[in-house]
Amino acid sequence: MKRIAIDMDEVMADFNLKIIDLVNREYQGNVTLDEFNGKKLTQIRPHLNDQVREHIIASNFFRDLPVMKDSQQVIEELSRTYEIFITTAAMEFPSSFTAKYEWLKEHFGFLKDMNFVFCGDKSIIHADYLIDDNSRHFTRFQGQGLLFTSPHNIYETGCVRVNNWLEVRDYFLG
Amino acid sequence: MKRIAIDMDEVMADFNLKIIDLVNREYQGNVTLDEFNGKKLTQIRPHLNDQVREHIIASNFFRDLPVMKDSQQVIEELSRTYEIFITTAAMEFPSSFTAKYEWLKEHFGFLKDMNFVFCGDKSIIHADYLIDDNSRHFTRFQGQGLLFTSPHNIYETGCVRVNNWLEVRDYFLG
Repeated sequence: MKRIAIDMDEVMADFNLKIIDLVNREYQGNVTLDEFNGKKLTQIRPHLNDQVREHIIASNFFRDLPVMKDSQQVIEELSRTYEIFITTAAMEFPSSFTAKYEWLKEHFGFLKDMNFVFCGDKSIIHADYLIDDNSRHFTRFQGQGLLFTSPHNIYETGCVRVNNWLEVRDYFLG
Repeated sequence: MKRIAIDMDEVMADFNLKIIDLVNREYQGNVTLDEFNGKKLTQIRPHLNDQVREHIIASNFFRDLPVMKDSQQVIEELSRTYEIFITTAAMEFPSSFTAKYEWLKEHFGFLKDMNFVFCGDKSIIHADYLIDDNSRHFTRFQGQGLLFTSPHNIYETGCVRVNNWLEVRDYFLG
């Protein structure tokens, strides 16, 4: 059975949506999703970086992120013919571990928690495919990387790209 | 650079020592280390399993485990010529994540936290070697497993075995 490793933030969980809401509601940042095109959060309103980081490192920030459209349905379908592992870079925010675990149990309860991996450097992942919004994780990954489109990576070239979960379904089951 | 993945409990951290102290102090269990020979904790004082489990799932149980003899020195030496990843099965006790992370930062501060991996099924680990006290993790592991001696595994055969950290040093640097 081939194995697919799937990243969480900006792939299964809509991190940007919560950040935009936070910056606009708490700090009147007037951020729009278009501003994320080709940019990381830290480049958009640099004067708010410290405050936003305070929110992110709070233990519950990741607990109520919106679920990415179609991800539940497609991952459930994939899990019938592929071995699914969730591989999230959690070491930058160690306080997020429990919230991320609970979020997965709530929204993807059909997955085995023995297949959850909280890591940093994803070259440790042994899988046939890795779906991720950060192409840096593909550099030392031995399998096939699939770049999941997120505003910050839209100008990147040179990767196999999937724009949404329906395209992921087509790639694997189409 | 070859990569060594290292388990935490019963390899870097002395889980048994804390359990024995707990069972004897809180529940007058009169447990000795010899009783662990060939057995898992749950087989030794089954009537205390529920109470002991309550302690283990408390968020701080793993925060103050004793450090295994010679592990700091040898892992530091290994890290000069090998890429070291810490790969701990944390999904059985999700409340342990933060305590395990802090324990590693305190006692193995020379390691990069980007190389910490909290997982369940270790077949996801891509490494050349895996040092672990549970041989079941070697079954689907693609590299070389090294069984680190712990009372529960002393009667197991068929694995390459290392009895302590000085033997680990000999294996890799001897």
